[in-house]
Amino acid sequence: MKKNVETFIACDSEYDKSGIVLFGAPFDSTTSFRPGARFGSSAIRHESFGIETYSPYQDKDLIEKNVCDCGDLELSFGLPETALKDIEEQTRMILKDGKLPIMTGGEHLVSYGAVKAVHEKYPDLQIIQFDAHADLRDDYLGAKLSHACVMRRCYELVGDNRIHQFCIRSGEKDEFLFAREHTDMHKFGFDGLDEVCKELIKNNTPVYLTIDLDCLDPAVLCGTGTPEAGGVYFPELLDAILKVSRTNIVGADINELAPMLDISGASTAVACKILRELILSINK
Amino acid sequence: MKKNVETFIACDSEYDKSGIVLFGAPFDSTTSFRPGARFGSSAIRHESFGIETYSPYQDKDLIEKNVCDCGDLELSFGLPETALKDIEEQTRMILKDGKLPIMTGGEHLVSYGAVKAVHEKYPDLQIIQFDAHADLRDDYLGAKLSHACVMRRCYELVGDNRIHQFCIRSGEKDEFLFAREHTDMHKFGFDGLDEVCKELIKNNTPVYLTIDLDCLDPAVLCGTGTPEAGGVYFPELLDAILKVSRTNIVGADINELAPMLDISGASTAVACKILRELILSINK
Amino acid sequence: MKKNVETFIACDSEYDKSGIVLFGAPFDSTTSFRPGARFGSSAIRHESFGIETYSPYQDKDLIEKNVCDCGDLELSFGLPETALKDIEEQTRMILKDGKLPIMTGGEHLVSYGAVKAVHEKYPDLQIIQFDAHADLRDDYLGAKLSHACVMRRCYELVGDNRIHQFCIRSGEKDEFLFAREHTDMHKFGFDGLDEVCKELIKNNTPVYLTIDLDCLDPAVLCGTGTPEAGGVYFPELLDAILKVSRTNIVGADINELAPMLDISGASTAVACKILRELILSINK
Amino acid sequence: MKKNVETFIACDSEYDKSGIVLFGAPFDSTTSFRPGARFGSSAIRHESFGIETYSPYQDKDLIEKNVCDCGDLELSFGLPETALKDIEEQTRMILKDGKLPIMTGGEHLVSYGAVKAVHEKYPDLQIIQFDAHADLRDDYLGAKLSHACVMRRCYELVGDNRIHQFCIRSGEKDEFLFAREHTDMHKFGFDGLDEVCKELIKNNTPVYLTIDLDCLDPAVLCGTGTPEAGGVYFPELLDAILKVSRTNIVGADINELAPMLDISGASTAVACKILRELILSINK
Amino acid sequence: MKKNVETFIACDSEYDKSGIVLFGAPFDSTTSFRPGARFGSSAIRHESFGIETYSPYQDKDLIEKNVCDCGDLELSFGLPETALKDIEEQTRMILKDGKLPIMTGGEHLVSYGAVKAVHEKYPDLQIIQFDAHADLRDDYLGAKLSHACVMRRCYELVGDNRIHQFCIRSGEKDEFLFAREHTDMHKFGFDGLDEVCKELIKNNTPVYLTIDLDCLDPAVLCGTGTPEAGGVYFPELLDAILKVSRTNIVGADINELAPMLDISGASTAVACKILRELILSINK
Amino acid sequence: MKKNVETFIACDSEYDKSGIVLFGAPFDSTTSFRPGARFGSSAIRHESFGIETYSPYQDKDLIEKNVCDCGDLELSFGLPETALKDIEEQTRMILKDGKLPIMTGGEHLVSYGAVKAVHEKYPDLQIIQFDAHADLRDDYLGAKLSHACVMRRCYELVGDNRIHQFCIRSGEKDEFLFAREHTDMHKFGFDGLDEVCKELIKNNTPVYLTIDLDCLDPAVLCGTGTPEAGGVYFPELLDAILKVSRTNIVGADINELAPMLDISGASTAVACKILRELILSINK
Repeated sequence: MKKNVETFIACDSEYDKSGIVLFGAPFDSTTSFRPGARFGSSAIRHESFGIETYSPYQDKDLIEKNVCDCGDLELSFGLPETALKDIEEQTRMILKDGKLPIMTGGEHLVSYGAVKAVHEKYPDLQIIQFDAHADLRDDYLGAKLSHACVMRRCYELVGDNRIHQFCIRSGEKDEFLFAREHTDMHKFGFDGLDEVCKELIKNNTPVYLTIDLDCLDPAVLCGTGTPEAGGVYFPELLDAILKVSRTNIVGADINELAPMLDISGASTAVACKILRELILSINK
Repeated sequence: MKKNVETFIACDSEYDKSGIVLFGAPFDSTTSFRPGARFGSSAIRHESFGIETYSPYQDKDLIEKNVCDCGDLELSFGLPETALKDIEEQTRMILKDGKLPIMTGGEHLVSYGAVKAVHEKYPDLQIIQFDAHADLRDDYLGAKLSHACVMRRCYELVGDNRIHQFCIRSGEKDEFLFAREHTDMHKFGFDGLDEVCKELIKNNTPVYLTIDLDCLDPAVLCGTGTPEAGGVYFPELLDAILKVSRTNIVGADINELAPMLDISGASTAVACKILRELILSINK
Repeated sequence: MKKNVETFIACDSEYDKSGIVLFGAPFDSTTSFRPGARFGSSAIRHESFGIETYSPYQDKDLIEKNVCDCGDLELSFGLPETALKDIEEQTRMILKDGKLPIMTGGEHLVSYGAVKAVHEKYPDLQIIQFDAHADLRDDYLGAKLSHACVMRRCYELVGDNRIHQFCIRSGEKDEFLFAREHTDMHKFGFDGLDEVCKELIKNNTPVYLTIDLDCLDPAVLCGTGTPEAGGVYFPELLDAILKVSRTNIVGADINELAPMLDISGASTAVACKILRELILSINK
Repeated sequence: MKKNVETFIACDSEYDKSGIVLFGAPFDSTTSFRPGARFGSSAIRHESFGIETYSPYQDKDLIEKNVCDCGDLELSFGLPETALKDIEEQTRMILKDGKLPIMTGGEHLVSYGAVKAVHEKYPDLQIIQFDAHADLRDDYLGAKLSHACVMRRCYELVGDNRIHQFCIRSGEKDEFLFAREHTDMHKFGFDGLDEVCKELIKNNTPVYLTIDLDCLDPAVLCGTGTPEAGGVYFPELLDAILKVSRTNIVGADINELAPMLDISGASTAVACKILRELILSINK
Repeated sequence: MKKNVETFIACDSEYDKSGIVLFGAPFDSTTSFRPGARFGSSAIRHESFGIETYSPYQDKDLIEKNVCDCGDLELSFGLPETALKDIEEQTRMILKDGKLPIMTGGEHLVSYGAVKAVHEKYPDLQIIQFDAHADLRDDYLGAKLSHACVMRRCYELVGDNRIHQFCIRSGEKDEFLFAREHTDMHKFGFDGLDEVCKELIKNNTPVYLTIDLDCLDPAVLCGTGTPEAGGVYFPELLDAILKVSRTNIVGADINELAPMLDISGASTAVACKILRELILSINK
Repeated sequence: MKKNVETFIACDSEYDKSGIVLFGAPFDSTTSFRPGARFGSSAIRHESFGIETYSPYQDKDLIEKNVCDCGDLELSFGLPETALKDIEEQTRMILKDGKLPIMTGGEHLVSYGAVKAVHEKYPDLQIIQFDAHADLRDDYLGAKLSHACVMRRCYELVGDNRIHQFCIRSGEKDEFLFAREHTDMHKFGFDGLDEVCKELIKNNTPVYLTIDLDCLDPAVLCGTGTPEAGGVYFPELLDAILKVSRTNIVGADINELAPMLDISGASTAVACKILRELILSINK
C-alpha cells in the first residue's frame, strides 16, 4: 500500500539522488498587513497538480529532473530568531550535501535564514531580488527581524552593491536613499537586468535569487499580503528568471504567496508555474 | 531527510500494523448541484492539524491508536463505473488484510463502491445512513450511478429493511413512498436510533455506517453541495456516532464535504472533528 | 401578465425568426481540477444585464439582430456519452433549421457534441481553437471522453491540419509532439492567425470557432477551473474574434467559465462581453 | 423549441389558472448597512432547483399546486416612491384577479407597497411580522420611506395593535417604547403566536404575513444585510409559518436575503425552503 | 490619551492649515447592478496603511503635504436629492475656505453634488472624466439623478464640449450619439489627453477631475460594481493623472470602488495608491 | 469641521469623564493556524454601526454610559514580549486613572499583558475564561509566549484554582490533566458558573473576564482562526456574561475574531453585540 507522500508535482526523487532540494518555510509572524503567507508553501505543493510537468517555454520536463521536495519545516510562530535558525540549519545541510536549495515561503523574512547559510558557503555571494518593496528598513516598529528589514539584514552580510533589486516601487523615502548608497536598485521593472547578469556570468559569481511574488502586478497575483499596483506581468518575470538562470545560481526562494486571499486559486497557479520554470531553468 | 508524508492527524502508522485504514475517494462527477466534494478528502487531511489528537468527549487519543492513512485514490472523472470499481478494489484489499476501512468522499455515490466490497465479505450487512437526502431514486436524469440513487443501489445489494436512514428531510415523494416499503427511514433526526442499535448489537450484525455530512444543519456545515435546512447539530451527531460505535461496525465513510464552499474553514474543521471521533469510537 | 423568460441580453427573438440560436450546455463531469463550469452558461445569461447591448468596438447593437436564446439543455451528470448526444442532437436541429448555433459551456468537452453535428453537415469543416491547453490527450485517467481529450476527439473527425490552435501554453510533452504532426498549433498567442484566416476566407471553408476562456490570462479571467498564466488579454482576444468572424463561421462556442471562482463577477462580465462581440461579429 | 422560462421550482402554472402568484421586488436603495437584497428574489428563483418540490414536513408537493411565478418587477433604484407604486400596482392587479400575492424582496421597505394594495382590498387587515428589527422609526436620516421605517408606515395604514411583531431583538429605545403603545410586540421569539393566531382565526381576520429573513439566527442565515445574533432557528420558523397558515392569509412576502453575502449558498437554500413551505401551507 | 482619529494615511493636518481637504461620500442608492460603492471611501481610508506615504514615481511624500481628511459625510440612503445637497454643501464650504476638495465615493452620482459647488465658484469649469461608461443617459428607469446620468446632469451645468471623456467603452448607442454632439469623448483609452491638457493649461481653465475607477481594466480593479473589460492599466492611469495635474485642478474625486467585491484587498490597495498619487500631484 | 474620530458605537466620551476605557490590541504573531485576529479590534469598531446602541435584553443604552474608545495600540509584529509590555503599560495607565479596561484582541495571548497589570493592582485576582481551548500548554513549539500557553502563563501569576475555565472542548491530554490539578475547568459549556459567581460575589473577589470568541459554536461565529465544533450559542453566552457581570469585574477582554474569515460579516456582528452587552452589563 503506497504512502501518501505529497510533493510539488514530479519532485519526488530520493534526496540522495537529487540535485535540487525544495523545502517550505511556513512562517509569517512579522507580516504587518494581511497575514497568511504561512500557507504559501503548502498551497503551492498542494495545487501543483493543476499544472503540467512540461514547459513549452523551455521545452523541458520536470519528470526528467531529479528534484526532492522534502516538505515544510515546522517553525515556531512568534519566535523569528528561532525560525530563522531552523531555516539556516536546513539550508546548510542541503548545501553541505552538495545540493541546491530552493525554499518556498512564508513571508520574505525567511530569506534571511537561507541567505545566511548560503553566504557562509559562498562568501562572495551576490543577491538578486525581485520585489515590489525595498525591504531595506533598519527596523520596523522596533523589530530588526521583520519582513520589512530582510534586505537590510542581508546587506549587512554581503555588503555594498551586492544586492541587485528589481521591480521596486514601494518603500519609505529613507529606503530609497539608502539604496542609492548601498544597493543596486532598479525601480519598477527589469531594466538593467541584462547588464547585471552579464557581469555576474563573467565573474562566475555565486548568486542567490529571491523572488517576492508581489513583484508581479496584483492583476496577475492578488493573493499576497501587500499587493502593490504597477508591477510586472508574467511574461516579463518568466523572461527575467530565464536570464538569471544563466548565472551561477546557488540558492533561490519564492515567497509571500498568501492563499487565503486567493479564492479563485489563480494566484497559487501562477506561483506553481513560476516555481516550475525556476526549477527547470536551473542546471542541476 | 524526512519524506513529506501527509496523513490525517496522527494516523501515520505502518499499514501492516494498523487496525483501521483511511483512504480518500475524490470523485464528484455525478453531483447535480454545486460540485467540489472531490476536494473533501484532501481538505480533511490537510486541515486536520487545526484540531487536537485528544478527544475530551471520549477521553481517548489518536496517538494511542494504530491508524494508517494511505491517501487519496486516483479516480477517473466522468467514468462513475470505473471509479466505483477502483473504490471497491481498494476496500476489498483492506478487508482481506483484516483491517477496517474508513473512506472519505467525495460525493455520496462513492459509498456504493465500498459497500459492494463490504457486502461481499459480510453478506448479512446492514447499513446505517445519516443524511439529509433519501438518495433512493431509481435513476437521476437517466443515470443509475448517481449520488441521488446511491442508497437505491445499496438497497439492491442488501435487501429490504436493512438500510436504516436517519435525518432524512429531502427527496421526491416517490422516494418517501419507496422507503415506506423497503427501508427503515427515520425522518428529520435520530429518533429510533437507540432501538436500531440495540437490535443490531443483539445479533452482532455487521454494520456499515455512511455519514453524508449534509445530515448536519447548514448552520453547522455550510460547505456541502446541497445544504438542507432543518438538520441535526454537532452534539447530536456525535452522540449518534457513539451509539452506532457500539454495534459491530465493519466499514464506514464520511462524504459530501465541499471545501470550495467553506471559505472560513469551519465546515472542514467540523468534518475533521467528526472523523476523529468516529475513528476513536471504533474498537480496532 | 408577462412570463419570466430569461435570455442573454436582447437575445429574445422568436426561434423561427432568428438567424443565430444560443443554448447552454451545463456539464462539467470530466473536469479534473476545480469544477463548476456547469454554471457558466446560466451565469452568462443571468449577468448579461450588467453589460450594454451596444458595442462601441463594432458600432453594432444586439437589439438590431435576431437572436434566440433557448436556454440550457438538461444534461445528465456523470454520463458524458449521453450528454454529448443531447448536445449533438440540439446542434443538429438548429443547423437543420438553417440557423447558426452558438453554445455556451460547460467544460470544454461539450464542444465535441456540437462539432459532431456541425461536421456532419459540413464535412470539410475546420476548427479554430483559442485555448491555454492543447486538449490533445488520447485519454485522461482512462477516459476517452474528457475535457483533456476534446481536441483529440475532434481531430479524429476532421483529420490532419484542420484544427488551428492558438494561445496554447500547457499540455503534456506528448501533446505538443502530436500537434507537430497533426494540428496547426500556434503557441502562446495569436501569431499566424492572419494567415490562417486569409486561407480559410479564400476557400470559403466552413469554420467552427471554439473559445476556451482560459486562453485569457488569469488576470483577466480568474474564474475558470484551470487558470494558466501567460495568456492573452481582452483586446487581443477581441481582435482575434473579429478576424475569425470574416471567415465562414458555421458554429461556435464559449466554454470553461466557472462562476463559483468568480466572486467579484468580473470574469463573468468579461465572458458576457466576449459573447456579445462574437454574436455581433457574425453575419447572420 | 422551448422558451427559457425561469420560475421558482414547479411554479410554472399559467397565470389565469393559478391561485397564488409570485413576483420579485428587487429593490434595496434605502438599505443603510450592507446592500444586495436586490438580488434576493432572483437568487431564490435561480437556486430553487437545489431543493425538491415535495415537503416531508407537510406531505405536500408543489407540482400539485397551481402557482405562477411571473418574475421580477423592474424597479427604479434611487426612487423609493416610484418603486413602491410599481409594487402596489402589481399587487393590486393580482388581488383584483382573485389571486393571492406572494412577493420576494428586496429590502423590507418593499412590503409597504404590497401592504397598501392588500389593505385597500381588506380594510380590517392585520399584519404578522417575523423580524429581528422593529422597523418602527418615524424616519431614518430624514427619509420616511426607509427599510427602518417600514412597519411605522404600515402602522399608519392599519392602526393600533394590528401589527403582531415576533422575534424582535433590535431597535432604538424609542421604537420599543412606540411598540408598547401601538403594536403587539413579542421580543426574541414566537412566544404568544398561538394566542394571536387563535384570535385571528376566530374572527377570520385577513392577515398579511411579512417575513424578514433576519428573524433567523445568523447561524442559519448569514446572507442578510444586518445579521442580528440571538434569532430563531429553522424548525421554529417553519412551525410558526404553519401556525400562521391556519389564519386567513391574503398576502405574504419574504425579504432581505442578500446573496452576495452568501458565498456557500446555504442562506439562499434556506430561503428557498421557507418559500416552498410557505406556498405549500397556504390553502389556495 | 490619544483619540482614535482615522484618516487616509498621513492626511492628518488641521483643517485650517490644509491646502487639500478629503472627504467621503458613502452613497450608492442608484447603483443598478452590484451595490456596495458606499463602502469605498471608508475602505480607502482604512486600508491606506498598507501603502507607503512616499511615492517613488513623483519622489514626493504625503508627510510633507498639508492634507486634512475630515471623514465621511452621513448621507441619506434612498434620497439622492438630499444626499447631493449635503455633498454640494460640504464642497462649497471647503472651496469658500480656499481649499481644494477631493472627494471619495460612493457611486459616480456623487460627483454631481461636488461639481455643482465647484461650478458655482468657477463658472468656466471644464471636466475631465476617466470612466468605462459614458454616463450620459437622460434618465435611467425614470430617474434623472442616477449614476448612469451623472455626466448628462453635469453637461447641463457646464455646456457643450466642456466635458472631456476618456477610456469610455460602454453605453447605449444614444449616449455615443449624444457625445458626438455635445462632449469631447475619447474612446477606450487616453488618446488625445495631451492635446486636451495643453489647451486647458494654455487658458488656465479650472478643471474638475472625476475618476471612475472602472476606467481601469477589471484585471487591475475587479472590485467595482460594473466591471468592463478592455480598460486601461495602472501605469497608464498614473501617467494620465500626472498629465492632468499640470492643469489648474480645482476639485477632484475618485469613485465606484466596491470593497465587498474585493476579497483579496487588491482593488482597494490600487485605489489607495491612485489617491496618494493624485494628492501628491496637485500643487496645493 | 469635525475630525474623523472612529469609536465603537456611542463610546465617544472624553477619557477623563469615562468609567470604562476600550482599546484594541491588534496582535496575532503567535497564531499557529489561520491568522488574522489582528484585524479583530478594528473590525469590531468599524462594523459596530450595524448594531443599535440600545439593548432590549438589559433595557440599557450605550448613549447613557460614559465609555471612551481610545483606538488600537500600535504593536510590534514578531515581538510578543514587546507587544505584551505595551499592552501591560496601557492597562496599567487605565487602572491607575481609576477606570476599567476592556480590551479587544487580537489573538488570545494579548490577555496576558492585560492580566499582568490587573493582577499587579489586584493581587487576589481570579480569572473567568470562556474558551474552546484550554490554552494551558507550557510551551508551543518552543515558545512560552504563545496563544496556546496564555492561561498557563496567567496561572503562574494567579496560582491554583483561581482560573475558572468554561466551554473548554479542545486541548492536549496533558492540558486536561494539568487542569485537574491546578485550574477550575468546566468542559463544554457553562455548567457550574452559577456556583462560581456566587462564591466570587460573596468574597467580592476582583475578577478578570476573558472571552475567546471561539467558545461560541462555529455555526454562530465561523470567523475565528481555530473554530471548534460543539460550542455554546449566543443566548447561552449572553446569559453567562450577565451572570459574571454581577461579580466584581475589574477588567475584561474579547479576542480571536478573525474578520478575514468572516466574509458575510455575521461573525463580526455577533462580536459587536457581545461587546455591547458586556459594556452595558458592567456597573461603571
